[in-house]
Amino acid sequence: MFFDFNEHSHIRQNPLTGDWVMVSPHRTKRPWQGKTEDIVKDSRPEHDPNCYLCAGNTRANGEVNPNYTDTYTFQNDFAALQSDVPNGEIKKGNLLKAESVKGECRVICFSPRHDLTLAEMTTPEIRKVVDTWISEFEDFRQREEIQYVQIFENKGEIMGCSNPHPHGQIWASSNIPVEIKKETKNQRVHFRTYKKTLLEEYVQLETSENERIVVENDNFIVVVPFWATWPFETLLVPKRAMAYISEMTEVEKDDLADIVRRLTTRYDNLFSTSFPYSAGIHQAPTQGDNLEGWHWHIHFYPPLLRSATVKKFMVGYELLANPQRDITPERAAEQLRNLSETHYKHN
Amino acid sequence: MFFDFNEHSHIRQNPLTGDWVMVSPHRTKRPWQGKTEDIVKDSRPEHDPNCYLCAGNTRANGEVNPNYTDTYTFQNDFAALQSDVPNGEIKKGNLLKAESVKGECRVICFSPRHDLTLAEMTTPEIRKVVDTWISEFEDFRQREEIQYVQIFENKGEIMGCSNPHPHGQIWASSNIPVEIKKETKNQRVHFRTYKKTLLEEYVQLETSENERIVVENDNFIVVVPFWATWPFETLLVPKRAMAYISEMTEVEKDDLADIVRRLTTRYDNLFSTSFPYSAGIHQAPTQGDNLEGWHWHIHFYPPLLRSATVKKFMVGYELLANPQRDITPERAAEQLRNLSETHYKHN
Ligand SMILES: O=P(O)(O)O[C@H]1O[C@H](CO)[C@@H](O)[C@H](O)[C@H]1O
Ligand SMILES: O=P(O)(O)O[C@H]1O[C@H](CO)[C@@H](O)[C@H](O)[C@H]1O
Repeated sequence: MFFDFNEHSHIRQNPLTGDWVMVSPHRTKRPWQGKTEDIVKDSRPEHDPNCYLCAGNTRANGEVNPNYTDTYTFQNDFAALQSDVPNGEIKKGNLLKAESVKGECRVICFSPRHDLTLAEMTTPEIRKVVDTWISEFEDFRQREEIQYVQIFENKGEIMGCSNPHPHGQIWASSNIPVEIKKETKNQRVHFRTYKKTLLEEYVQLETSENERIVVENDNFIVVVPFWATWPFETLLVPKRAMAYISEMTEVEKDDLADIVRRLTTRYDNLFSTSFPYSAGIHQAPTQGDNLEGWHWHIHFYPPLLRSATVKKFMVGYELLANPQRDITPERAAEQLRNLSETHYKHN
Repeated sequence: MFFDFNEHSHIRQNPLTGDWVMVSPHRTKRPWQGKTEDIVKDSRPEHDPNCYLCAGNTRANGEVNPNYTDTYTFQNDFAALQSDVPNGEIKKGNLLKAESVKGECRVICFSPRHDLTLAEMTTPEIRKVVDTWISEFEDFRQREEIQYVQIFENKGEIMGCSNPHPHGQIWASSNIPVEIKKETKNQRVHFRTYKKTLLEEYVQLETSENERIVVENDNFIVVVPFWATWPFETLLVPKRAMAYISEMTEVEKDDLADIVRRLTTRYDNLFSTSFPYSAGIHQAPTQGDNLEGWHWHIHFYPPLLRSATVKKFMVGYELLANPQRDITPERAAEQLRNLSETHYKHN
């Protein structure tokens, strides 16, 4: 009997973080009798008078949103990071170690339309979101006390999103978060060894293997990475190595909007549902000597496994021992690749 | 203004894994308008004819469960790990790395009673579970191809548990899972440097600070660790350093049963609900030179944040950048410490 990656249990390594994932291809046959998610109501008004993100409405702190027409950014009223934190440290023995963190959290409304998501917005509308990401990022990058700027979106109730109005977040902090530290180190080591960014080389490899590509255009490619942890996880990579999103040309910005629309539409079409995910841009830290080998990219981590109501649980074994997946990344890529780029609602 | 760990955002390091968690104490004021969990129906029959874990019933593969009277162990019918996997490896360039994994998954029924959980079982009944953990562990430890044995429990639908019948799992694998690799390394480094296990020293420190202890008896202590990630996460540690659970004396086994009952009862009493969690025993790998400094312990990772229906979402920022918590570990410990050890159902 020969080893078959489509049949037999194995582990795969993520070169960006150094972590491993366990793959159990045969386990897709398992019946599911456990918890199912509610089907989320998917018809919303264009404007909801009770939504604190809609144009013209009043927020928790009494501020009134302007009548914005494309994107709108404001400070998170319940921010996890505060800017007025005094410096502090705990160090007791070699066991208790803590440090103060300063920072700021902002919310970006993607559109005044309460009833849309990125998947249902037009490419020019998404381009406005791209421009907002860039200008917000550049704004934080000027600030000496900020070391890293995390731009992300939690989409769907199941991902802890408390308001369906299309929006994302930015958390900027005076420390470098753990995931970014790992990617900084591994990309640097790769670059020093091979004189090419890790992701430049990976894009070439995926292009030649042509097995895990979901969608691509002139300047971007989306794959289900070889080391994907979430069932339909994807990695969106610019073909040209850049440390920061603000290095994009105008054409690249348009192409990013294009590929985001095409990917998110495929996601919605997978289970004919507004597809939940957490997605975020990883780019180089903004201060100090942390740029070498950085190639910015976007991770999409969607929780659904086999339908609109059955998700993958990252629980016992995954939390205590090792992340685990059932369906192979190759099979997931094939499913996503075969979907239409016309949104199911417009079909 | 001075830095105050009960007020200001900060990060704390986990010495077992080396990872960091962000703490935002002020954020507990945030209102929650998002997804809430269903209240799980909490009255079940003592025997359910449709349950595949109840005594005398037939499982998916046609096997009939014996009329067991305390615990009962069998092979998982949809195991993530298989034992008949041929050796295999992928190595393409420096980017694609994969290896075959062999192993076995078993299910342990904690009791024939369909309507119980550990929290509602008696100490002698839990002692039988402890004995089963030990004998199963020793059974796997004899097998040369097994490197690590993960004993765990997913409790509650929200934790991906598909059957409320009290049960746990054992996944034994030919590789050392990522979390165990980290703990092996950090405990070894600590031991070599200080000639004492990391957790021996930590137990002393927590005993002298007396701020994060939840419950203790002669041989065990439970704390909300300084670096806890989940809101009401706890760490259960034997006071004496041991690499494996099979090293316990009879008295220690009884004391483990005692402390598990008292802790899980407190958990249920926190929100007057059958408290969901993933919990698991971390012990030394079973083969090779991986014992030095190992001090076995049990982690409890419960998802609930502020009531039986509002959980902590480990989503966007947490997945992409850094785990984050709102309530401080000290405050969580205080809440758990002040609860009764009589189960709310018997009150
Ligand atoms: O084997 P079970 O209980 O059906 O499955 C549950 O626990 C496993 C181990 O943590 C997870 O991989 C599954 O996602 C979860 O649903
Ligand atoms: O800030 P929000 O959207 O209210 O909160 C959501 O996203 C945050 C960042 O991932 C998480 O910490 C919260 O648990 C989640 O509910």
